[in-house]
Amino acid sequence: MRVPNPEELLRQACEGHRGALAKVLSMVERGGEAAHRVGKAAFELAGDAYTVGITGAPGAGKSTLTSSLVGHVRGTGTRLAVLAIDPSSPYTGGAILGDRVRMGQHSLDEGVFIRSMATRGHLGGLAVAAPEAARVLDAAGFPWVLIETVGVGQVEVEVAGAADTTVVVVNPGWGDEVQANKAGLMEIADVFVVNKSDWEGAAQTVKDLESMLNLTTQGRWRPPVIRAVGTTGEGAADLWAAVAAHRSHMERTGELEQRRSRRLRDELDLIVARRLRAKAESLLEESDRVAVGRAVEAGRLDPWSAADTLLAPLDA
Amino acid sequence: MRVPNPEELLRQACEGHRGALAKVLSMVERGGEAAHRVGKAAFELAGDAYTVGITGAPGAGKSTLTSSLVGHVRGTGTRLAVLAIDPSSPYTGGAILGDRVRMGQHSLDEGVFIRSMATRGHLGGLAVAAPEAARVLDAAGFPWVLIETVGVGQVEVEVAGAADTTVVVVNPGWGDEVQANKAGLMEIADVFVVNKSDWEGAAQTVKDLESMLNLTTQGRWRPPVIRAVGTTGEGAADLWAAVAAHRSHMERTGELEQRRSRRLRDELDLIVARRLRAKAESLLEESDRVAVGRAVEAGRLDPWSAADTLLAPLDA
Repeated sequence: MRVPNPEELLRQACEGHRGALAKVLSMVERGGEAAHRVGKAAFELAGDAYTVGITGAPGAGKSTLTSSLVGHVRGTGTRLAVLAIDPSSPYTGGAILGDRVRMGQHSLDEGVFIRSMATRGHLGGLAVAAPEAARVLDAAGFPWVLIETVGVGQVEVEVAGAADTTVVVVNPGWGDEVQANKAGLMEIADVFVVNKSDWEGAAQTVKDLESMLNLTTQGRWRPPVIRAVGTTGEGAADLWAAVAAHRSHMERTGELEQRRSRRLRDELDLIVARRLRAKAESLLEESDRVAVGRAVEAGRLDPWSAADTLLAPLDA
Repeated sequence: MRVPNPEELLRQACEGHRGALAKVLSMVERGGEAAHRVGKAAFELAGDAYTVGITGAPGAGKSTLTSSLVGHVRGTGTRLAVLAIDPSSPYTGGAILGDRVRMGQHSLDEGVFIRSMATRGHLGGLAVAAPEAARVLDAAGFPWVLIETVGVGQVEVEVAGAADTTVVVVNPGWGDEVQANKAGLMEIADVFVVNKSDWEGAAQTVKDLESMLNLTTQGRWRPPVIRAVGTTGEGAADLWAAVAAHRSHMERTGELEQRRSRRLRDELDLIVARRLRAKAESLLEESDRVAVGRAVEAGRLDPWSAADTLLAPLDA
């Protein structure tokens, strides 16, 4: 049996082979030459999937809410894919899949494709892999791609914010606006959802958010505040309608095009930086690189001067 | 009046000029050439400050606890610096200083230097700037540097974990181990503090943590679990004693040296990655390459092929 090449796997994925799609996404996640080839091929094949970021603090009920949203969207006959980013331990690299279990009810539905993706060690790894994975799902024919990620942390918030529409999930009693602002969530929200809105304090949280929006959103898109209960599916239809309304706004005003342009440019910067690194490494003898690394580890050479040495070949 | 150069400012900071120290830290925060020069110079001047990371979920009371710890340490006559990392909005870059206000009681004490640091837009910015800032504070003569950061998000957890001793702050009722595991906090903890331990459920939380530690820490350092109340200062002495005990362990076993070597290596990797990113951006700004960037922004060219074009001169 021969090993299928990335382009062939992608072609199979586009014909509806779910196993091939899973393999292509693993290639993207691993990075390197295969990811590079998938990247080029998927760009040609990708249509115009609309991406929706779903984010919020740990414990806000993002997965349950996403699952209820998937149920609603599938009820309308629309196909969609979910990319669930699991921030994994920085030490073991292992993703915890507990939340994914709740998505189990959709596992037999051919119109949904759910994929967990771990954030691996390298800085920039997730930031390169997440948009690429969304593009692969686009190429595979899913008109909507939901990207669910924890909404705290620089990289995670950037990934969640790099969607066409970003939904920020909060909970009743989540009155500490400073905490939300700290994470940068207020500013990336196109739609707010107060999840677990059957809990005490939901009305107050909606009111607090609306007051804050009164102060901050003059003249721009004003994020609607939706109430939902992920565990019962309540509010899923309202949430989807709010996403659709934001999409219309984005398309009408030209903001969608601008946002996508900026995203492509960011993607290019990241890809170039990653490849420059590979290039710099290839230009320096392995033994020299090891010696520089050891001198830094031993405290004999400062990391800045070491970086000068390692990158010198690029300036030659 | 001439503008002092980075090396001169650093020298002034090392002589005890607090204004100069603040300016040097701003240089580190902004990155670029000045940060690069500070980095090299501080490496020569830095002694052997011991760094303590203090982290936990948003709202765990980290700042209040840190402030109570500062009070205790100052009571023993020891000088120390606090680096408080504010994850700021990825869109405005503005740090919210609410938490810092609580540190106000130490603002007139010459034996303490407290600095807030925002996480700026660029990937890796915080991860490069935080250790560098700690090294500057070391060079400026502080024997202890506390690094306080929110304990969610890949970069933030990495920064918190990149200390000689890492203290993880939890609260009573914080029973959801999966959430802690997800954030990678369990694995970076050298000391646990149950803060707000005058709240209901504190004893149970201590018990839960101890049970978890029974399962995971055979044969290695076992993180002690300390009870504290940040607002009253209760437990601060116990916490400091636990930090000192861990320090002794680290020094005795040689783990301190190993951990510092690994950190220097990580720092080198990050510096290289950032400089590659800057190189990538500068490539795109050269006139004959602007068109490539525009083609990507317009969706006419995929970022992978664009990267091929931009990097081709390096292969010539």
